Amino acid sequence: MITRLSTLFLRTLRENPADAEVPSHQLLVRAGYVRRVAPGVYSWLPLGLRVLRRVEAVVREEMDAIGAQEIQFPALLPREPYQATNRWTEYGPNLFRLKDRKGADYLLGPTHEELFALTVKGEFSSYKDYPVILYQIQTKYRDEERPRAGILRGREFLMKDSYSFDLSDAGLAESYRKHREAYVRIFDRLGLRYVIVAAMSGAMGGSASEEFLAESETGEDTFVRSPESGYAANVEAVITPAAPEQDVDGKPAAVVHHTPDTPTIESLVAFLNRADLGRTFTAADTLKNVLVKTRMPGDAGWELLGVGVSGDRDVDLKRLEAAVAPAEVALLDDVDFAAYPFLVKGYIGPGALAANGVRYLVDPRIVRGTAWVTGADQPGRHVVDLVCGRDFTPDGTIEAAEVRAGDPSPDGQGTLVAARGIEIGHIFQLGRKYTDAFSLDALGQDGKPIRITMGSYGIGVSRLVASIAEQSHDEQGLLWPRAVAPADVHVVVAGKDEAVHEAAERLAVELDAAGVRVLLDDRKATPGVKFADAELLGVPTILVVGRGLASGVVEVKDRATGERTEVPVEGVVAQLVELCRK
Amino acid sequence: MITRLSTLFLRTLRENPADAEVPSHQLLVRAGYVRRVAPGVYSWLPLGLRVLRRVEAVVREEMDAIGAQEIQFPALLPREPYQATNRWTEYGPNLFRLKDRKGADYLLGPTHEELFALTVKGEFSSYKDYPVILYQIQTKYRDEERPRAGILRGREFLMKDSYSFDLSDAGLAESYRKHREAYVRIFDRLGLRYVIVAAMSGAMGGSASEEFLAESETGEDTFVRSPESGYAANVEAVITPAAPEQDVDGKPAAVVHHTPDTPTIESLVAFLNRADLGRTFTAADTLKNVLVKTRMPGDAGWELLGVGVSGDRDVDLKRLEAAVAPAEVALLDDVDFAAYPFLVKGYIGPGALAANGVRYLVDPRIVRGTAWVTGADQPGRHVVDLVCGRDFTPDGTIEAAEVRAGDPSPDGQGTLVAARGIEIGHIFQLGRKYTDAFSLDALGQDGKPIRITMGSYGIGVSRLVASIAEQSHDEQGLLWPRAVAPADVHVVVAGKDEAVHEAAERLAVELDAAGVRVLLDDRKATPGVKFADAELLGVPTILVVGRGLASGVVEVKDRATGERTEVPVEGVVAQLVELCRK
Repeated sequence: MITRLSTLFLRTLRENPADAEVPSHQLLVRAGYVRRVAPGVYSWLPLGLRVLRRVEAVVREEMDAIGAQEIQFPALLPREPYQATNRWTEYGPNLFRLKDRKGADYLLGPTHEELFALTVKGEFSSYKDYPVILYQIQTKYRDEERPRAGILRGREFLMKDSYSFDLSDAGLAESYRKHREAYVRIFDRLGLRYVIVAAMSGAMGGSASEEFLAESETGEDTFVRSPESGYAANVEAVITPAAPEQDVDGKPAAVVHHTPDTPTIESLVAFLNRADLGRTFTAADTLKNVLVKTRMPGDAGWELLGVGVSGDRDVDLKRLEAAVAPAEVALLDDVDFAAYPFLVKGYIGPGALAANGVRYLVDPRIVRGTAWVTGADQPGRHVVDLVCGRDFTPDGTIEAAEVRAGDPSPDGQGTLVAARGIEIGHIFQLGRKYTDAFSLDALGQDGKPIRITMGSYGIGVSRLVASIAEQSHDEQGLLWPRAVAPADVHVVVAGKDEAVHEAAERLAVELDAAGVRVLLDDRKATPGVKFADAELLGVPTILVVGRGLASGVVEVKDRATGERTEVPVEGVVAQLVELCRK
Repeated sequence: MITRLSTLFLRTLRENPADAEVPSHQLLVRAGYVRRVAPGVYSWLPLGLRVLRRVEAVVREEMDAIGAQEIQFPALLPREPYQATNRWTEYGPNLFRLKDRKGADYLLGPTHEELFALTVKGEFSSYKDYPVILYQIQTKYRDEERPRAGILRGREFLMKDSYSFDLSDAGLAESYRKHREAYVRIFDRLGLRYVIVAAMSGAMGGSASEEFLAESETGEDTFVRSPESGYAANVEAVITPAAPEQDVDGKPAAVVHHTPDTPTIESLVAFLNRADLGRTFTAADTLKNVLVKTRMPGDAGWELLGVGVSGDRDVDLKRLEAAVAPAEVALLDDVDFAAYPFLVKGYIGPGALAANGVRYLVDPRIVRGTAWVTGADQPGRHVVDLVCGRDFTPDGTIEAAEVRAGDPSPDGQGTLVAARGIEIGHIFQLGRKYTDAFSLDALGQDGKPIRITMGSYGIGVSRLVASIAEQSHDEQGLLWPRAVAPADVHVVVAGKDEAVHEAAERLAVELDAAGVRVLLDDRKATPGVKFADAELLGVPTILVVGRGLASGVVEVKDRATGERTEVPVEGVVAQLVELCRK
């Protein structure tokens, strides 16, 4: 089928939409691929839907190739299964909840572990039935606090979610490996630049977990890697190597100093170095205690939490959130400080926290025997040489300090570099959390039940469209890889001559007959307008039929490289067919 | 790809599910095509999803063929557009409503007229842009009061909805004609037996409206047709021909009779015929006044409505509902009767209704000059010879009386026969209701705005799967038309011999290589179990590889006719390829 721009439901925009900040969002809207309906909720116009469907097809082919079987669950789901696993509560405000006309509780599915586990339980009973991998490509819903960047982080989005069911840990490892390889093939076929990083297992339990991140400056995920070792991890998943413990004997005694007007690390270090204490202090010698409050889903009240990090690092809120999940975390406000007079803002130390029963977790570098300058719990006072394990004892460690380029790699080889990416896939050895919740067993050969172990694997299909656009564009517009392009060849009729129109029409028909997908710009518009739209739309090959026709040539332009070639009109169809077959 | 039953996520059931009453529901569950998740909410298992996708593909091809352009809207929609057309309220409890984390109102889209109109307004501006037809194949939501029959009437379902946008009424008629022809091609390709009937335009306004009904005893829609004229209509859309008016002069005066214990038509007629009034009465001589209450969406209170029909007919609640839509209608309960003491149950007449300002609508056959026996508004009393237009004057007419086989056809040719069907498609000339609501205009050639006129056209895609199953099954199971079958050939390995397995495997591979979709029953099960499952699953051609192999033959069975043929094993692949190509 030839798609004619004269009738296509498409209007391109010259200006970026006011709410669009990242290139993929700007260009997908300008080129008429998507339109906003509500925050994080988008419509797909004809060309956008084609790209989405092509991405979906690649995902489907590779899932089928590993023997995964496609099924489809509803998006409207009853509360009960999610109640059984506590996710009805744990999801908090991220879940869209609703009631039906009879008052029964429903939700819009954010992910379907419960339903898949229950369905397998309903159909399968014997060890001979396993292993099985099931998947769906389905519309999902999450009431994101900050939907952003168009379809990059939407509230309604298309996702491939698959689930593996195995009799043993070794089986799960094999299902995980199959998925990992399928994901590599999918993202390779889509022409993406991506990294595979260690990810948080999170509160879900389970063991191995990796994320596929499309490299992009506009990505929300920060990851680090060690070029020396190949180590790569999402910053949330970085495990800080603990410092070696030291002997506390012989350490100088802790002394409280009057340090007026030193509520910040900078002012404190400056004061200490002016105070002639016989040594030089840096921010790394100070212990910063950040007070937050956490609340488990479903709990009414908040609980205080003290987080101790060395003064040369900030607390990374995303790492902190990941560390305490599924609990929510919030910074203290003035009302909180007023409610807890023992918290002396700017001068909080471990002492007051211990004395008032506030849970206190510290960075893994703060170990027994290390000495710190920290707050003395009185305005204008700090204590120097407060020794961990002698003068204070934290309740445990927490991964909340920022990870920085230049930090030593957790695997001991080299130092970390940091970059940003978009999470496009996640593979996860869930283990038995859900099968325990629903008692999903297989009857073993010996007549005894075997508890099934699960994996869960996601790909953000609609997000992939944005991720590809984010990596493949230039100033003029989009640059689709051929595997997902809305057409193979964009034929521009550049001229008003009847002969030009006829020739373009004939070439389009011949290309179409040869199986090449053609976008034909047969509009009454200037060549300038048409060229600009061809660049914006991003079809990989542009065929210009114009003045050259008089001398028997047309122009073939490679959208990505900008390379232009004059080709004799009689040979161009064969050449383009060849090009598109590659 | 060969689908192997040994690993397919499928377990067939020998028993009908307890909640399944209609054959399609029973068989689709027993054969493992769908599974229930909640009332009216179903999952599609692998074979079911294949049938659904094949139906979807036929719909898509025929929509594309009329130049309709596919787009995709979200299912999660903001309230505002539906507020603008009042459908937020009019839909009443049929709409799934929800709030997001910020408290904003959303709904799950039941149909998308508003969004399509707004989107066209956003993209198009000139008369040159029109006409355009847009469609989507998308998951829809309606909180049905009585979801039933599995996927036949679900609360989450897959629908093709398209919308035409034209500059003129003639253009709309043309878009309507294109859809009508596309629908005929779709339902023909799917092998359905169906009728096209006149439908209610309903409260939406607009003019022409037709429904496509798949003929089925289990259908919820009753339609009538006149075999003599070809007239066909949904009962809700039947227009009762008005009786000729009569002169009121010379009619006998109305007389009130004491008619004790005659609260029903039967008891009244029997009493009258015993009372020696000089003539014989039938139920058709009586005027039955049925009291109901109606409420417009968004209104707080109910309003009384009297409906007068001749005593030989019941009020058809579905016709009444259609006639008063979008108002709700409910029967009066004892509390209502207690609240309105002028309503004397069993003896209600037009008099008390008029005296108390109750709106009173009558069947079109109750015209000026007709004389009736009806209630006298006192217990045990009726009035005889109450003449319409002399003794009482209704507020208007209403299409609420039942339509019966044998009634004269509204077109004056022949009499009606009745049958039942499943609504599988609806085409509707909406007109300018939505374009008025959103001021959707095109700039005309003369610089003046032209208000666009719309059509809306639906096909219940998931319901089609059930409708086909409803029409194509027997005692043993499903009988899929080849166009939608989950496979072309079901190969049964009937025997434990290695040679049988190898031959079946080889035939499956050869068929697959020739593009035939193969379901291979390679399970360790008895031939009896395998044959029963083959019948149940309903693949159109069954290839049995068994004992005959020793003498060089296999058996080809036509699932629909039951015809079995022995075929030499060396020729069977070519024969089946030929069969599947037809």
